[in-house]
Amino acid sequence: MCSYMATLGKRAKDASRCAARLGTIEKNKGLLSVAEELLIEKDQILEENQKDLIRAEENGMKSSLLDRLKLTEERLKDMADGLRQIAALDDPIGEILSMKNRPNGLRIGQKRVPIGVVGIIYESRPNVTVDAFGLCFKTGNAVILRGGSDAIDSNKAVVRAIKAGLRKAKLSQDMILLVEDTDREIVNEMMQLHGIIDVLIPRGGKGLISNVVKNSTIPVIETGTGNCHIYVDETANINMAAEIIENAKTQRMGVCNACESLVIHENIVQQALPLIVQKLKCHGVELRGDEVVCALNNDVIPASEEDWGTEYLDAVLSVKTVKTFDEAIRHINTYNTGHSEAIITNNYQHALRFQDEVDAAAVYVNASTRFTDGFEFGFGAEIGISTQKLHARGPMGLLALTTTKYVIFGDGQIRN
Amino acid sequence: MCSYMATLGKRAKDASRCAARLGTIEKNKGLLSVAEELLIEKDQILEENQKDLIRAEENGMKSSLLDRLKLTEERLKDMADGLRQIAALDDPIGEILSMKNRPNGLRIGQKRVPIGVVGIIYESRPNVTVDAFGLCFKTGNAVILRGGSDAIDSNKAVVRAIKAGLRKAKLSQDMILLVEDTDREIVNEMMQLHGIIDVLIPRGGKGLISNVVKNSTIPVIETGTGNCHIYVDETANINMAAEIIENAKTQRMGVCNACESLVIHENIVQQALPLIVQKLKCHGVELRGDEVVCALNNDVIPASEEDWGTEYLDAVLSVKTVKTFDEAIRHINTYNTGHSEAIITNNYQHALRFQDEVDAAAVYVNASTRFTDGFEFGFGAEIGISTQKLHARGPMGLLALTTTKYVIFGDGQIRN
Repeated sequence: MCSYMATLGKRAKDASRCAARLGTIEKNKGLLSVAEELLIEKDQILEENQKDLIRAEENGMKSSLLDRLKLTEERLKDMADGLRQIAALDDPIGEILSMKNRPNGLRIGQKRVPIGVVGIIYESRPNVTVDAFGLCFKTGNAVILRGGSDAIDSNKAVVRAIKAGLRKAKLSQDMILLVEDTDREIVNEMMQLHGIIDVLIPRGGKGLISNVVKNSTIPVIETGTGNCHIYVDETANINMAAEIIENAKTQRMGVCNACESLVIHENIVQQALPLIVQKLKCHGVELRGDEVVCALNNDVIPASEEDWGTEYLDAVLSVKTVKTFDEAIRHINTYNTGHSEAIITNNYQHALRFQDEVDAAAVYVNASTRFTDGFEFGFGAEIGISTQKLHARGPMGLLALTTTKYVIFGDGQIRN
Repeated sequence: MCSYMATLGKRAKDASRCAARLGTIEKNKGLLSVAEELLIEKDQILEENQKDLIRAEENGMKSSLLDRLKLTEERLKDMADGLRQIAALDDPIGEILSMKNRPNGLRIGQKRVPIGVVGIIYESRPNVTVDAFGLCFKTGNAVILRGGSDAIDSNKAVVRAIKAGLRKAKLSQDMILLVEDTDREIVNEMMQLHGIIDVLIPRGGKGLISNVVKNSTIPVIETGTGNCHIYVDETANINMAAEIIENAKTQRMGVCNACESLVIHENIVQQALPLIVQKLKCHGVELRGDEVVCALNNDVIPASEEDWGTEYLDAVLSVKTVKTFDEAIRHINTYNTGHSEAIITNNYQHALRFQDEVDAAAVYVNASTRFTDGFEFGFGAEIGISTQKLHARGPMGLLALTTTKYVIFGDGQIRN
């Protein structure tokens, strides 16, 4: 148990005990100090990020993933602003959620407390490093980060800046620990630190997530994969539908809340398809459709069964027609990944039924799926988007990183 | 995938879709019908319970466990009353937790919805069968129960009555499914039904729980083991301390919120110990203490290191003296299982610091640990006591069996 990973775990556990006792003022000072330091060290960080980008390009990384990896002065500024926004948020720690007097005079309250040590395993998005630290630190948790080898130079530089910011605020630098060893075996060790790491959050592709779910003995919050649908109902406003689809598919291709599949009611497909295809063509989006769609438009390639379940993260969109509203619901509940789903409709009942019956973290009426995001939801940042049902579902902000304990005030009560 | 367990899983999934759409009135009718049926069939249930009890006694089951297994007319009435209490509780499903307007006009709300299929693996407590059904059904979930082989006859009889109650209320009998095959291999199959069972709740001893934590690919809520401490602080009221300790240790021995270990400040041990020992001796409790305690009282047996970490569930109590308040906190945080911990004190700062610094689901000042219970907390019943930090912590009532989804109402919003 003196391995590299066990030692990191022990350091994080010790740091978490300190973190839990920090007051809001100290934590906010730390966050602002780190925000400042990120901008002070921006040239070094961008330089290190360049190394990662060059290596990734040489390895043939596709453009949507390169976009995730890339840092710019603008993005660094956004990251620092994110920390300042977190500092400005109310500190949820210590809040008593409800305090009730029981008939026997016991006062029972539920107090919000830090989880302890949060472990995050992620791929090549260095902005996660800063967001994760900010949210974990504000909620009194220590964090162990295991980023992808693709982003190792960026992550090292970012963590160096965070630690410098903490040091300047006279805080323990162990509040954030980066697993610098990129050996895959280390991840397996990390997933077995039950009792040391209190929760493990994987952020990345399907393979990463299912590996963690299968092999971790630590409780896991599943995040991520988004096979998001937009359903164009019979009564949809076609212009609105086309604009929302264009936005949800093309505003940023490589992200989990991008639209990957259209479902269109047969009675509107003939009218709606030309406008949708026209908008998407400008962005070079390839369409893969069922027979009805292919018959209506020569640009559409026939879709295979596999397409309905695929998260492309790229300029591809599947298109399926349905004969009824119920068929749309069934199709979406069969192939979705529990992330974000939207209906475009003017039918009141369909709007409500879609929200009731589609099983996903975020269900939209007449809006783009791209809004599923901690910033857009007003949380100040996000630690990931949970696609599972326990503890947290949808974009996770500060509250997802807290737990509660019951505090009971008595004056000698015994149970009868 | 046509195995016995997979078939049960599929039936539960289908039933959960129906359950999620039931209105509060229908669900309450079902609960009342089942409550009635339990009393109608009480003779058959008690008769079947007798079979389990006789078998258990023959197998040498210890008395505290026999007490858990035993059903009586009184306990059956309590179980039926529990269902009526659940029927009387507010239905949390469908509640919108908060609905906010974002600056772009999106209305984002968080809606409480059922989890889906709940799996419960438990040992020989047939009352769990009814509690679990009641809470799962009220929250629109289907439930798959895997009870211990010790209680199989009782559980079959209870489930038969529940299904009859559901049938009389014109509801699907698949809302509750009992795994009647007591083969251990079946549990392994059950733990792999990721995507079918949405959450697995083990209730029972350490071995059962750690087996589920290690081998389940389904998210698990750890419940149960309670190595609960009572710390008698320097300023404690000695009479209050003795009464609370007597209650927490002896009111019911075989339960997880019973006190298993005393921690006493050295400055008060000489005065407090005689009264505590006197009260506990009347109940035949064996004391195992450290050197200080053994020197003070001849009835105390020397404790080994193992004793500090043991949940006896029996008439045994360990006793440890400490020189300082901080030592007490350290000892408790080292050996507790995150269940229920109490301090007896008149020191204001120690009361608050104990609640802040002891890491457990329920932290008491001047009251018995025996109150950690869904009924005592006012939940109307409980599905278990979570000793982990995710999703639910402490006694779990209706809310622990729900999740949320974001519902978003737009009028054409796209993301910039």
